[in-house]
Amino acid sequence: MPSSTGSLFEHLRHKPPAQLAAPRELILACPEFRSRVNLSNIVRTCGCFGIQRVVACGSGKLDERVARDGADAVRIEVHRSLPPVLDRLKREGWQLVGLEQATHSENLFSFKFVSRTVLVIGNERLGIEPEVLARLDRVAEIPMAGLPHSLNAATSTALAIYEYCRQFPEGGDGRPGAKP
Amino acid sequence: MPSSTGSLFEHLRHKPPAQLAAPRELILACPEFRSRVNLSNIVRTCGCFGIQRVVACGSGKLDERVARDGADAVRIEVHRSLPPVLDRLKREGWQLVGLEQATHSENLFSFKFVSRTVLVIGNERLGIEPEVLARLDRVAEIPMAGLPHSLNAATSTALAIYEYCRQFPEGGDGRPGAKP
Repeated sequence: MPSSTGSLFEHLRHKPPAQLAAPRELILACPEFRSRVNLSNIVRTCGCFGIQRVVACGSGKLDERVARDGADAVRIEVHRSLPPVLDRLKREGWQLVGLEQATHSENLFSFKFVSRTVLVIGNERLGIEPEVLARLDRVAEIPMAGLPHSLNAATSTALAIYEYCRQFPEGGDGRPGAKP
Repeated sequence: MPSSTGSLFEHLRHKPPAQLAAPRELILACPEFRSRVNLSNIVRTCGCFGIQRVVACGSGKLDERVARDGADAVRIEVHRSLPPVLDRLKREGWQLVGLEQATHSENLFSFKFVSRTVLVIGNERLGIEPEVLARLDRVAEIPMAGLPHSLNAATSTALAIYEYCRQFPEGGDGRPGAKP
């Protein structure tokens, strides 16, 4: 029914979110970032997509003006470094997927995620460190087609989160993360 | 060939971007944002994906520390308001797609873009204004599954850009944007 402006479309403010059929099975694993804004932005995005668990290094402190209610909706687990927690998650059946420009990386446009995935992010400047790269099962890469050839860290993380959620729109499928 | 760390994956710095087979046929149309950082972030993302044209309202000024080389790679056309330029683009055969939570919006996860698309963004606080909504052919919506129920404006824009580029990984197909 068109509105008084003759438009089919009317802005819906505070639309209630969709209910997932099952909890998300995506964990974010973040290095110590240079910028607290990036971690905070990532946490906001996680909250919006129903992702509940972020492993972070460094202080793990958020700017709540950026993270918004994501700061309450998402559990932040702070670790000194990623390798021990990644080793444990791998033993528990999670597939470790890095987001990076790397040898043997797969194009995110056609990347097929498994449900139980740990998405591993790199530092803004340094990328994913070699000790972490060595532990990954797979690496996804966002294809760049122009300058500056490099997305903001929180933006690229959001794109990988989006692609995962697009493949599991109703939440996790409960199956262990098999090796590809 | 595994590296000295035993890893299949090695970080590739400054990897050359992919060459698109044809120019992108996506135009961004942005309102006057509250934050210059948001427009700058969007321009950086556009540059990375090979998108060359952004219509902006307000000052159209960028923070070049945020936009990076996107500030040079992307053409910013500043207009006083969006309706006249949207009317013109529509006459030229572009499909006008809003990104908004609205009545009759379609889930971005399953949204099928046409190549010649103008992606219309809303203001951070106010969303897409009614005079603009009334001109749109379609509205895409990113499904929210948790708090804060609302993504950052530059993040949500990046997700829609990503979804478009995923559907046209080689660039535009040169066909006019038919009505759905």
